[in-house]
Amino acid sequence: MIPTPYLLFLGDAPDQLATKVAQGIKDWRPDHAIGQLRLPTCKADLGLTDMTLAEAKAAGAKTLVIGVANRGGVISPAWKEILIAAIEAGFDIASGLHNLLRHEADLVACSMAHGTSLHDVRVPGIDYPIANGVKRTGKRVLAVGTDCSVGKMYTGLAIDAEMQKRGMKSTFRATGQTGILITGQGIPLDAVIADFMAGAVEYVSPDNDPDHWDVIEGQGSLFHASYSGVTMALIHGGQPDAIILAHEPTRKHMRGLPSYTLPTLEALRDMCLPIAQVVNPACKIVGISVNTASMSEDEARAYLSELEARMGMPAVDPFRDNAERLVDALEAL
Amino acid sequence: MIPTPYLLFLGDAPDQLATKVAQGIKDWRPDHAIGQLRLPTCKADLGLTDMTLAEAKAAGAKTLVIGVANRGGVISPAWKEILIAAIEAGFDIASGLHNLLRHEADLVACSMAHGTSLHDVRVPGIDYPIANGVKRTGKRVLAVGTDCSVGKMYTGLAIDAEMQKRGMKSTFRATGQTGILITGQGIPLDAVIADFMAGAVEYVSPDNDPDHWDVIEGQGSLFHASYSGVTMALIHGGQPDAIILAHEPTRKHMRGLPSYTLPTLEALRDMCLPIAQVVNPACKIVGISVNTASMSEDEARAYLSELEARMGMPAVDPFRDNAERLVDALEAL
Repeated sequence: MIPTPYLLFLGDAPDQLATKVAQGIKDWRPDHAIGQLRLPTCKADLGLTDMTLAEAKAAGAKTLVIGVANRGGVISPAWKEILIAAIEAGFDIASGLHNLLRHEADLVACSMAHGTSLHDVRVPGIDYPIANGVKRTGKRVLAVGTDCSVGKMYTGLAIDAEMQKRGMKSTFRATGQTGILITGQGIPLDAVIADFMAGAVEYVSPDNDPDHWDVIEGQGSLFHASYSGVTMALIHGGQPDAIILAHEPTRKHMRGLPSYTLPTLEALRDMCLPIAQVVNPACKIVGISVNTASMSEDEARAYLSELEARMGMPAVDPFRDNAERLVDALEAL
Repeated sequence: MIPTPYLLFLGDAPDQLATKVAQGIKDWRPDHAIGQLRLPTCKADLGLTDMTLAEAKAAGAKTLVIGVANRGGVISPAWKEILIAAIEAGFDIASGLHNLLRHEADLVACSMAHGTSLHDVRVPGIDYPIANGVKRTGKRVLAVGTDCSVGKMYTGLAIDAEMQKRGMKSTFRATGQTGILITGQGIPLDAVIADFMAGAVEYVSPDNDPDHWDVIEGQGSLFHASYSGVTMALIHGGQPDAIILAHEPTRKHMRGLPSYTLPTLEALRDMCLPIAQVVNPACKIVGISVNTASMSEDEARAYLSELEARMGMPAVDPFRDNAERLVDALEAL
């Protein structure tokens, strides 16, 4: 668990896109985002108050989050001075970079000397159990995609936000690096050892109140040759009561696999449901979340309404609109 | 790759069953099994020539394989003296135990001093790539089970042996610890990091001659809540042209999951084929391998013949009989 609130470190970000992680934290957990810290060459701006380490400390920030990705995912020498100063000021550091904080000897020595923690969210912090498949109490919803990066995390965060707004009991369960940084906890599922994947998902979504929803962050795709095993473990460890299909209709081929076209939503539905029913016979597919960012407003509306008629369930873009109709469908379960 | 042939170390095995790994090597790669080395308290006997380290060395043995599992999978102090002496005599050591050779400081120091290698087949020796899903040349067959431990490795080894007997080009591709020790190479799939599982399977089964068969060792089950992700990665990384369904008909529940009954072979067929066809649209299910060890001869014959009629494909027990009819079906593809 990463102590909150955060000071978001934007470093020397060359553009706004490089600060996607920080943006996600600001969008979805604004209470976690006390301020931003930028180097003089930084080209990004989240619109948060610019703070020095001392100002952020005084405002209650507990962790400096590296909210910027640079080429190669490495820890830039330009950042080191700030990171060291942050540790000396008593901050934890959290990072989702490939280059681990714990492999930087100077950061490790400094954090040990000051009794602070380095949170590398890219690697598992604990040994997860082997899944036992025992039915857990509480309700669970999972987004399952036709492809990777079609908006599954966004869909989950939007559903959780809508549930919170309605006063429902819900928790977003992060299963990837960005999700972990946004919420402060979770499992880096793609970095877990094969035998323990489903167990990690059981771990992150334990027994809960009967009327509580775990909104489990989706990963990969059953149709993605590289990552389908991760998706499988997520479904079998997650025991979802409800599945949201997630899709990006303009994509030409599976992400990173030029020789693979995307499956239809019907094919995904037909493969996905029997798999989910292995661990939860009552599981239902209740809606479709479509990322229509590459479509005009008119195209998007026409596509969603055609899809809804074809599939017989709500089809929405939670970014263009909101997740109200998906949550309606979940409440109706 | 583990240098062969082997001297099989049976240690202080309390019974024959404890030497299952050594037995597998002797059964399936008799040319690899030059002799056995037993401590005075050993209760097992593979029927191989008992050899001292010096005798095995003179006979050409290159690696001492720990062919015995003791309680907890640890490296017994009683074995240390022999292991050290073996390294000093120039042997590599190979082990599938949970307790890794590389974590024993005295073994590491000794092997470094003598320029020999320690092979821990339980952990990956290299960094596998992320799967690219590109169609590879050559043919591939994979056993997919209704449950774990229903005879998938045995089925694969029997198919490979039958193909060799017929002069066909084939290679058994080990994906588990025992398979790796038997054949001297392979991937410990259940110990690979999630993102690289399918890539590891692609790595272990590369392009080959168009008439060459890779017989890929199956793992887990699509219906096993703990390990289904591993099976999924095996299918998508393996790109099988042919699938053999594997089953144990007397089992009361899924292995280790008392609340889960086994799926029917029909359910397995229906889930398995669309998954395989994501990466290989031409994939076919060509036969069924049944472990009838818990049935009488009459029961087994009746069961196999009923199953064959019901499923419309050869149903055989390769242990009770042989893999001839499975290989007939593969040749007919």
